[in-house]
Amino acid sequence: MFYFGVDYYPEHWPEERWNEDARLMAEAGFNVVRLAEFAWSRLEPDEGTFSFEWLDRAIEVLASHGMQVVLGTPTASAPPWLMTKHPDAFLTRASGDAVTYGNRRNYSPSNEAYRDHTRRIVEAMAQRYREHPAVIGWQIDNEFGDRDYDAPAFRRWLRRRFGSLDVINERWGTAFWSHTYTDWDQIPVPLSTGGVPNPGLALDFYRFCSDAYVDYQRLQIDILRERCPGHVITHNLMGFRYPLIDYFDLAADLDLVSWDNYPRGFWNIAADVDPSALALGHATMRGLKDRPFWVMEAQAGAGGWDIVSVAPKPGEIRLWAYQAIAHGADGIVFFRWRTARHGTEQYWHGLLEHDARPGRRYDEVKAMGQEIRSIGADVAGSKVHAEVAMVLSYDARFALEIQPNNPGFSYPDQFQALYRTLHRRGVAVDVVSPSADLSAYRAVIAPALYVLGEGTAAALEGFVERGGALLVTARAGVKDEGNVVVDRPLPGLLANVCGVVVEEYDSLPAGASNPIVLADASVRGAAGSVWCDILTPHGGDVIGRYGGDHYEGRAALTVNAFGAGHALYLGTVANGALLDAVIERLLTLGGVEHGPRRDDGVEIAMRRQGDTALVFVLNHAAEARMVHIDRDRYRVIVGDHDGTSELTVPPFGVIMLSGRADDARAETT
Amino acid sequence: MFYFGVDYYPEHWPEERWNEDARLMAEAGFNVVRLAEFAWSRLEPDEGTFSFEWLDRAIEVLASHGMQVVLGTPTASAPPWLMTKHPDAFLTRASGDAVTYGNRRNYSPSNEAYRDHTRRIVEAMAQRYREHPAVIGWQIDNEFGDRDYDAPAFRRWLRRRFGSLDVINERWGTAFWSHTYTDWDQIPVPLSTGGVPNPGLALDFYRFCSDAYVDYQRLQIDILRERCPGHVITHNLMGFRYPLIDYFDLAADLDLVSWDNYPRGFWNIAADVDPSALALGHATMRGLKDRPFWVMEAQAGAGGWDIVSVAPKPGEIRLWAYQAIAHGADGIVFFRWRTARHGTEQYWHGLLEHDARPGRRYDEVKAMGQEIRSIGADVAGSKVHAEVAMVLSYDARFALEIQPNNPGFSYPDQFQALYRTLHRRGVAVDVVSPSADLSAYRAVIAPALYVLGEGTAAALEGFVERGGALLVTARAGVKDEGNVVVDRPLPGLLANVCGVVVEEYDSLPAGASNPIVLADASVRGAAGSVWCDILTPHGGDVIGRYGGDHYEGRAALTVNAFGAGHALYLGTVANGALLDAVIERLLTLGGVEHGPRRDDGVEIAMRRQGDTALVFVLNHAAEARMVHIDRDRYRVIVGDHDGTSELTVPPFGVIMLSGRADDARAETT
Amino acid sequence: MFYFGVDYYPEHWPEERWNEDARLMAEAGFNVVRLAEFAWSRLEPDEGTFSFEWLDRAIEVLASHGMQVVLGTPTASAPPWLMTKHPDAFLTRASGDAVTYGNRRNYSPSNEAYRDHTRRIVEAMAQRYREHPAVIGWQIDNEFGDRDYDAPAFRRWLRRRFGSLDVINERWGTAFWSHTYTDWDQIPVPLSTGGVPNPGLALDFYRFCSDAYVDYQRLQIDILRERCPGHVITHNLMGFRYPLIDYFDLAADLDLVSWDNYPRGFWNIAADVDPSALALGHATMRGLKDRPFWVMEAQAGAGGWDIVSVAPKPGEIRLWAYQAIAHGADGIVFFRWRTARHGTEQYWHGLLEHDARPGRRYDEVKAMGQEIRSIGADVAGSKVHAEVAMVLSYDARFALEIQPNNPGFSYPDQFQALYRTLHRRGVAVDVVSPSADLSAYRAVIAPALYVLGEGTAAALEGFVERGGALLVTARAGVKDEGNVVVDRPLPGLLANVCGVVVEEYDSLPAGASNPIVLADASVRGAAGSVWCDILTPHGGDVIGRYGGDHYEGRAALTVNAFGAGHALYLGTVANGALLDAVIERLLTLGGVEHGPRRDDGVEIAMRRQGDTALVFVLNHAAEARMVHIDRDRYRVIVGDHDGTSELTVPPFGVIMLSGRADDARAETT
Repeated sequence: MFYFGVDYYPEHWPEERWNEDARLMAEAGFNVVRLAEFAWSRLEPDEGTFSFEWLDRAIEVLASHGMQVVLGTPTASAPPWLMTKHPDAFLTRASGDAVTYGNRRNYSPSNEAYRDHTRRIVEAMAQRYREHPAVIGWQIDNEFGDRDYDAPAFRRWLRRRFGSLDVINERWGTAFWSHTYTDWDQIPVPLSTGGVPNPGLALDFYRFCSDAYVDYQRLQIDILRERCPGHVITHNLMGFRYPLIDYFDLAADLDLVSWDNYPRGFWNIAADVDPSALALGHATMRGLKDRPFWVMEAQAGAGGWDIVSVAPKPGEIRLWAYQAIAHGADGIVFFRWRTARHGTEQYWHGLLEHDARPGRRYDEVKAMGQEIRSIGADVAGSKVHAEVAMVLSYDARFALEIQPNNPGFSYPDQFQALYRTLHRRGVAVDVVSPSADLSAYRAVIAPALYVLGEGTAAALEGFVERGGALLVTARAGVKDEGNVVVDRPLPGLLANVCGVVVEEYDSLPAGASNPIVLADASVRGAAGSVWCDILTPHGGDVIGRYGGDHYEGRAALTVNAFGAGHALYLGTVANGALLDAVIERLLTLGGVEHGPRRDDGVEIAMRRQGDTALVFVLNHAAEARMVHIDRDRYRVIVGDHDGTSELTVPPFGVIMLSGRADDARAETT
Repeated sequence: MFYFGVDYYPEHWPEERWNEDARLMAEAGFNVVRLAEFAWSRLEPDEGTFSFEWLDRAIEVLASHGMQVVLGTPTASAPPWLMTKHPDAFLTRASGDAVTYGNRRNYSPSNEAYRDHTRRIVEAMAQRYREHPAVIGWQIDNEFGDRDYDAPAFRRWLRRRFGSLDVINERWGTAFWSHTYTDWDQIPVPLSTGGVPNPGLALDFYRFCSDAYVDYQRLQIDILRERCPGHVITHNLMGFRYPLIDYFDLAADLDLVSWDNYPRGFWNIAADVDPSALALGHATMRGLKDRPFWVMEAQAGAGGWDIVSVAPKPGEIRLWAYQAIAHGADGIVFFRWRTARHGTEQYWHGLLEHDARPGRRYDEVKAMGQEIRSIGADVAGSKVHAEVAMVLSYDARFALEIQPNNPGFSYPDQFQALYRTLHRRGVAVDVVSPSADLSAYRAVIAPALYVLGEGTAAALEGFVERGGALLVTARAGVKDEGNVVVDRPLPGLLANVCGVVVEEYDSLPAGASNPIVLADASVRGAAGSVWCDILTPHGGDVIGRYGGDHYEGRAALTVNAFGAGHALYLGTVANGALLDAVIERLLTLGGVEHGPRRDDGVEIAMRRQGDTALVFVLNHAAEARMVHIDRDRYRVIVGDHDGTSELTVPPFGVIMLSGRADDARAETT
Repeated sequence: MFYFGVDYYPEHWPEERWNEDARLMAEAGFNVVRLAEFAWSRLEPDEGTFSFEWLDRAIEVLASHGMQVVLGTPTASAPPWLMTKHPDAFLTRASGDAVTYGNRRNYSPSNEAYRDHTRRIVEAMAQRYREHPAVIGWQIDNEFGDRDYDAPAFRRWLRRRFGSLDVINERWGTAFWSHTYTDWDQIPVPLSTGGVPNPGLALDFYRFCSDAYVDYQRLQIDILRERCPGHVITHNLMGFRYPLIDYFDLAADLDLVSWDNYPRGFWNIAADVDPSALALGHATMRGLKDRPFWVMEAQAGAGGWDIVSVAPKPGEIRLWAYQAIAHGADGIVFFRWRTARHGTEQYWHGLLEHDARPGRRYDEVKAMGQEIRSIGADVAGSKVHAEVAMVLSYDARFALEIQPNNPGFSYPDQFQALYRTLHRRGVAVDVVSPSADLSAYRAVIAPALYVLGEGTAAALEGFVERGGALLVTARAGVKDEGNVVVDRPLPGLLANVCGVVVEEYDSLPAGASNPIVLADASVRGAAGSVWCDILTPHGGDVIGRYGGDHYEGRAALTVNAFGAGHALYLGTVANGALLDAVIERLLTLGGVEHGPRRDDGVEIAMRRQGDTALVFVLNHAAEARMVHIDRDRYRVIVGDHDGTSELTVPPFGVIMLSGRADDARAETT
């Protein structure tokens, strides 16, 4: 079953209105509603006093119009009475200042009092709704995040994980600057008032911060699993860009990954939307459990708190929803139903206007609802098939946040740039963890694996040995898992498989670049910036050399035949021409079939259900685009069509095809 | 009587020097001196020990040279002994940090201890000088301002104003994010550590902050009114640009509005002075009580604390003083007499240099003193006559500071841009409060009336109905007085009079704009930026349409005939060409006569005394300008002239004319 | 003896490695090693428990390879047990927040507990190594710095220095804004929460902050002097750019000045190195005691904590070391031996890589070691002979940091620009304190002597009177030593010798400039910016006039014949053309011989040993350069040469000549 629905806050509106809202939802084709996400103060107005009747009635009204319900546990925003009673339950910022009341997400996930209150409300809700026929599952809390500079909790975590101070002093190298700890209570959190910290301490602190939410989530999951065994449990994550939590860890305990997809930014007003950034968000969320996911908050209008984003253009809301489906979504829930009249999110626009008018956004979603009715069953449960994997390491990401090495060096930006190069060729990509099984892939990209454990290194080496094509990029293998620089030439544990050693490196000033001369003379305009590894091959072949500075002529890009496969090492931050050349080489080495590069804003993606291919043609451009299809194989199941093989996709439009599964991509160009 | 004088700090200088200073003041034509503004530690060196003798002697010396005296109450800067004794009397910043000792304006206006000390010093001064023949009045404190994040005082204010938590929870919509308050002590102030706050809470907090100073001022006024019934009471305000206090409220309790006019900035070094910004400052200050005002601190030299501003050019000090008079000033007091040798304001230059030399600035003011002797009596008490009003809403201003909607959306900038368009045509403007009587005006402009009460909406509708011309601009009528989005189509309570509904809106990225195609094809280059309302007329006529984006062809500017008048609705932030077109249309609809646009830096303004018109020709340019006058009607009373009707106004020069009052402006072009 | 060595941290590495490290050091020609700088937690693992054996063994290994040892006292980074025990020993920032544990330099130098612990560790070390044959001296702490906002310590300092509150109230002019202090405990430190402070208080606070480290250093010196009378005592300073400590005061107590020279920045990534900035660093450090100095940390690789700097180009490490020698260094100690694997400074690269490889940087230094063996004895103890002095006033620098007057006004930038103009002509410059004996110089430059005491003013006047050439620049003589504006026309106490009065001044907006028309019509393109003094000559001759604004034609640059000499007054911040003209004029008036301006990156500098001149030709360019030498007089002692008089200096290369001492510079062009 495909879930199509909306996030709704009945507690914000007069009860008289609920029925009309539910009627309009049904008319839009919705079958699921998320409720109660931030309703703690309505559910437990005073400590220990519960009030569920209003929620019972709301569910009743919705169910009577055919809606199923996902309930949010309301712990992302505690009532004033709770935080006033437990002032030390507030989260602590890097400045050492505690958060104060006034927004949401203000609690410390390690605080015992907060955890006790959490248990009480979650148990009460689970008890109330465990057997409710309309309730199908739970969203825990909302958008976990923020680092909590809670020193005692960090020390407890260290103690559990490492057992002794000797281990920690050795691991962090505290001989440096006399930081040798002789008592657990001496260990600091890396406050901004403490200056640039020890990198080992900082990386462990970032891991602790991530684990604090994983642990807090588990506290809720344990209750819900026990009380409501038939319900699905999810949390709404924040996609690829969110950097503070190891999402592989967070997802491990969930039944279902869902996420909040806001292409038009929240914090800033973005003129342009990068379709590959959205696609990477979906691929990452799918990859967390290698399973279909939901978009729990799909953008339904302009976002905004004090600042309002650019409004979605006509067609974009539907386009983004279809893109999510193309990348593996089995549920789309729009945020939110009606634009709030009160509170911080007054300008986080819903499908209805402030005054309850259903306008063009409602109409667009309602039209899509008709389409979903006809295709939903075919889509649900189908798979995305990828021959290429990208390794996402939160350890590397955390460590490069702590030490960017160069102000222009960004782990997520490099990850995104590599992904974009594949995305423009319509290459499906799985985003996998450093401990993933790589055997199903033809090519693997490991961007900037700055922190690298032996297991991952061995897995990558084995992947190549068995015939795979691997791409490793600059700043790989620099650190062990304690964030200590390795005691061997870089790229450390990957030097062998890459057949190369980093002789020296250079960190470039802002704006500087170094031309890269490729062995393939047909490539023009290749260049590196930000960082230049000066490479000495140890078995590998040089296929790109620096064109300037004192290392002119030295190797920048190499390929190494290793076992039955090949490893590419890219020693610099590549510009577009260099990325194109490197990725083409990787795909060729891996034998990955793919289309030509499209620069016209059209994205082509596919899901498979058995031997049926569902092809999504997504036009992210503001102008109509032409796409060629094989009419013998495919039929149009969504979108206007006239029977010819040259399809016109309208601005921000979608065409969906159904056909035989093999070779699908090559036929649609 | 016209007051012409200077701010003087005898306590900074050896007593031997006082007589020479007073002699030079008299020579400059001064008749009034402000004293004692920051002298608390000299007047009350220890708690309860008063020392007035030195001030008695200073007044004596000044009076002997013909000066009258305005005394400042010294409460803007407390002595160290007071703040050390009452550390909780320090103001609290948005960060939650208290101010520490070292500057001025560091107290909390709601602090009871500070208020007690205030009563004591004000009572002592009032007692001492109530019958002093040289003393004519009081300036209370100095430049009230800053927000005090005093949670208990905010809660007291809420309690007084709203009575019950139920009212507050309903008003702020605390169902959102579980913010329902069940105890007064739970209510926070919107600290920066609390994140983006509830907009209702934030707007009430801003109102409380404004009221805290209004209330503190009243504490002093009550004492002075009772003890010194014959004295005039003022406070030195900070013009149009100062955003933190509702100046209509602050002025209500005063006898006289005065303000501090520093065209060459303080915090930054400004290359250019915008004459219309100065003019708007004067118009706003005159509008607070619809009465002549004083400039209590007129710029006398470069400003500066740690940074020194551009020095006033020769002529500018006199020019700015005349401009103030042209807009309704009946008193000009220069700040300050002699440049301080000590303290934070060492570089806030006075008329004399640090070394007591009277240089070119003194000479310039002294020459003006001669002119004032001949024209002062004619000027004092004369009126500015305006047919156009602009509605200044501090509620809207506060609310748009809380939620700018778009980073480029500025209430004061839009207000200023509209005013500038009128100012360039020599149109006199009254700045009025949302509750003002509008019956005397032909045209009214209500920029961005984001927060709109029923009374104001009805007044504006009534104004149009009775024949007036009204201009409403984007983001009007969005909120009720609780900062809640209205439950009706925008512009809310103004939709009816405007004959238009905002179907949707778009918030534009920085740098983006949308061309506006006007019905009047002669206008070229019109465009909107920042914000675009997409309008659907409901009775109104479309006179401007968007030329781009997905709403190309939709209405951007409309006019509605309503009763005997007309309402224009402008749905975007207009560029210069569009502003010109809109304002011309408004003036035509309202039947407001006006001159052509002058772009040469010459400002023409007028005051009327019975049937005599006093015309001020003010050249803000660094080059001489030509102006034509009707010699039969006017005679030159200030400035060089040769009897022809083509007058040359020197760079930064002033010509003042006297003549018959009717049609005066049309004759001077 | 010339010292050539390296900074080494044996406590970071396995003891098994020490011998190989020492062997490689000897091979590189090293004869000195700095040790133990941050080893407090190894030397005193628990309070009062000392552990010296490891250090004994490390010294033993190094001595066995011929190394002498400088020991660092480890007080720059206290062990966790100490700071946990004494939380009030942390330094306080301008925000009022205390530093927290996590980096180094986190202690308050005035804290009694910290001082007690300091005494104990320093006494223990002195006792242990006083007679060790390999130990030759001590480096106290590391890179003193930071301001400690310790109010009680400030008050104690004030009390000692001024004795009474009456003196302080008078000195600071606390009548301004009622700041009159009636109790010592009322006096604040100028926290950022206190707003722009009283300039007198702020300057005395900056002096106190500087004195706090001078005093703390003396505490250690007193112990070491007494216990180790045969040892040399130094501290590693931070060159000209470091602004927070009066280095003349700090150096006064030392035997030897040493400093840390990192041409490729630390906090930011700099593309270009300015050779004159390095040269000014050396000249300043030499000038502190008018004696040869050491570079205690010479850059050995890319710098970096979280950000890595541009790597030194091949040749640069040696070039910078020779430049240091050319300007008076008698010791070069590279930082550091091996790149650290742990800790905040993982990317502060040493001579060896992380993996212990000796790469190109080691090879470069090793080659230099060979050269040093042959020339070291000739160089050591030789002198730099300068005819020009620049007066460096930390009082002026502190006061202009407090009040920059204009955002573009920078004391160090102006100092540097004047120095650069001399440096490009190969003019040797001594940097001297305001109380220096000037009798040996022909020309003196006193940039922006904003705070000026009577002694310095008299010395400068006397210098001119006796025939010297003096250059005074804008904002000279503005303040007395209490940071009070003088009660006389500017340039105050220098008005007489300069024969000029500042009638007025103008502070220019960013980007604005005013052309300067010089009497010497051959100069083109001269201009001033930032600040313009409008001058009235009182005896002096005008040699430059403003070309714009309302002071067009007024004097900007004057020269005054006074006694047997001349004083130039430059009233603006000069661009390059104006600087060239002013410096040429100054050198001519002073009779200082000099070469032509070189813009090709070649620096020529000289040291003299009796009648032998050692000439250093230093090519800072990335391309080879030609230099002409007099072969009859000079022989090449370092660098390749073919016997001709046209020498080619390779990119980043060095040629060193030896010859007769007189007229040397004129012969090398």
